[in-house]
Amino acid sequence: MLTIVVDAMGGDHAPACVIEGTVQALQESCNRFEIILIGQADKVEPLLVDYDVSALNLKFLHASEVVTMEDIPATAVKTKQNSSLVKGLQLCKAKKADAFVSAGNTGAQMAASLFVLGRLPGVLRPTIYAYFPRIKEGLTNIVDVGANVDCKPENLVQFAEMLTIYQRYGAGIDKPVTGLLNIGEEEGKGSEVLKQAYRLLKEADNRGIITFIGNIEGHDILKGNATIVVCDGLVGNTILKFGESIPEFLGTLFKRSLEKLLSSGQFTPDIAALTTRMFKGMFEPFDVEKFGGVPFLGVDGISIVGHGRSSSRAIKNMIYMAEHMIERRVNEHIAEILSEN
Amino acid sequence: MLTIVVDAMGGDHAPACVIEGTVQALQESCNRFEIILIGQADKVEPLLVDYDVSALNLKFLHASEVVTMEDIPATAVKTKQNSSLVKGLQLCKAKKADAFVSAGNTGAQMAASLFVLGRLPGVLRPTIYAYFPRIKEGLTNIVDVGANVDCKPENLVQFAEMLTIYQRYGAGIDKPVTGLLNIGEEEGKGSEVLKQAYRLLKEADNRGIITFIGNIEGHDILKGNATIVVCDGLVGNTILKFGESIPEFLGTLFKRSLEKLLSSGQFTPDIAALTTRMFKGMFEPFDVEKFGGVPFLGVDGISIVGHGRSSSRAIKNMIYMAEHMIERRVNEHIAEILSEN
Repeated sequence: MLTIVVDAMGGDHAPACVIEGTVQALQESCNRFEIILIGQADKVEPLLVDYDVSALNLKFLHASEVVTMEDIPATAVKTKQNSSLVKGLQLCKAKKADAFVSAGNTGAQMAASLFVLGRLPGVLRPTIYAYFPRIKEGLTNIVDVGANVDCKPENLVQFAEMLTIYQRYGAGIDKPVTGLLNIGEEEGKGSEVLKQAYRLLKEADNRGIITFIGNIEGHDILKGNATIVVCDGLVGNTILKFGESIPEFLGTLFKRSLEKLLSSGQFTPDIAALTTRMFKGMFEPFDVEKFGGVPFLGVDGISIVGHGRSSSRAIKNMIYMAEHMIERRVNEHIAEILSEN
Repeated sequence: MLTIVVDAMGGDHAPACVIEGTVQALQESCNRFEIILIGQADKVEPLLVDYDVSALNLKFLHASEVVTMEDIPATAVKTKQNSSLVKGLQLCKAKKADAFVSAGNTGAQMAASLFVLGRLPGVLRPTIYAYFPRIKEGLTNIVDVGANVDCKPENLVQFAEMLTIYQRYGAGIDKPVTGLLNIGEEEGKGSEVLKQAYRLLKEADNRGIITFIGNIEGHDILKGNATIVVCDGLVGNTILKFGESIPEFLGTLFKRSLEKLLSSGQFTPDIAALTTRMFKGMFEPFDVEKFGGVPFLGVDGISIVGHGRSSSRAIKNMIYMAEHMIERRVNEHIAEILSEN
């Protein structure tokens, strides 16, 4: 049976939401896996008594320290060896668990995952991706979204390779398609790094490792012709955070419009309620909680990172993502293909 | 009286839309300036007969060649010396006109403006910015949006300085505020270029040339705490094009929702019509046609560039933008402040 470590202390609503999501995952899956919940006993245990955990495959493990959102990643890993983050990852390293899940400090989790678990054979730099809505069915992944700010061409190519493997084996996408985010479609556009990346991506396509459709531009992301959008961490992080701010921005515009129409009598309260429900429904494609979180691609182990504001549903889905990564043997495929390169 | 050269051949709907916008500008402004419309006689003259131009301050000038959207910028400038683009800018250089306006090939206009007009004293690299909607009143400018892909820290600082001058003298913003687009708020985040740019922006703030609020992230753009968002051309171009694609993306989501609600009987056709009108109204902040286009900042002359899909209204407003740039003496202020630096 698989064992998944869940960081009880990670996330804006920890530990309450984490405990709730963990219990839900075990109940919903009928104890399909074992979960080790790790965190500060005085914070977690009083909340655990609210649940009937006797019938669940759940163990609790005390960790005296907590890595906070304010901690500096590289420092936190060294100075907080007794944190749920570091101890949880060490359980995976020692083969006492198969995966680690946290909605805490992303930078610290990246640093700790690299430090404790190391890199898969052949991997230059691990990376982190994000989900984006699209006009076409399904979702698009953008990589990198902040783990690697200055990228070399060979890094960008490996990101595309790793995500192609993830999409093929982990997400069941038959033919993942990679586009290189650039300022124009034509070959030869962009910085020196992008020009070289273009050539290397073409080579990887020729060798059958990826399917490369060339340069794409900002307006192509939501169209979804590429299932993988490759860029450096500065561009990806900016687009990701910009994208995340859109629903709130539009919500504000929506409210302003609605208030005007209500006060001028053009809308009745009934129509306003109907319209509001419709507006909320429109944003379902933006719901990334169904994935909960994403794995760090390229580390020698499974470390799933979630958004700080993760709900219990997101935590639950992160646990399923961990299970999925193990069962689909995504890391084994990455190691095999990248070390052959 | 000011003389503005308008490129009749620039834009997806040229020359018809350009002629219409030019006539509107002269009529609406009561011939406040003189316009030289430049382009191919056989394309323009048959359309001009539809208007009563005898009462307008309008001259037509023949240019036998056309720079198309497909032309490679650097090549077009050299091989198409008889184009409306090159001849129009040469009129400005020869002081026979005060400004040039086009909705044609942006890259070619940038190259031709640099080649024909040259740079203002003290300017390292001219730049181009774009407008973004925001929660707060007014609009935000992003700079650079594609003219400069690989930027040095000193380029980024000059973009902020030039746009501060433009906003202060050209747009009447009392206190332009600059943010540096980065992956995190804290000083020391991001690439080496961004770290150095941060220090130089702080210095420029200390010298009173700009007001710098530090690093901002992707989700801060639409909030509008900064009136100027500084980034390199790759990031800016991607965000700009991504942003431009949002209304269409949401329009598709909206239509899908509406069709479902109509077919399930939850919405009557009347309610659907009301909701559609409301939805369209929500996007008024995205209407950048009220500006028509933007000036290339840093060239020694006034060259206004518009979107390829510019309507006649956008062309009209680009002409007003040209007039504005001349009257507010934005270039003189840029030259004065940057050459003192």
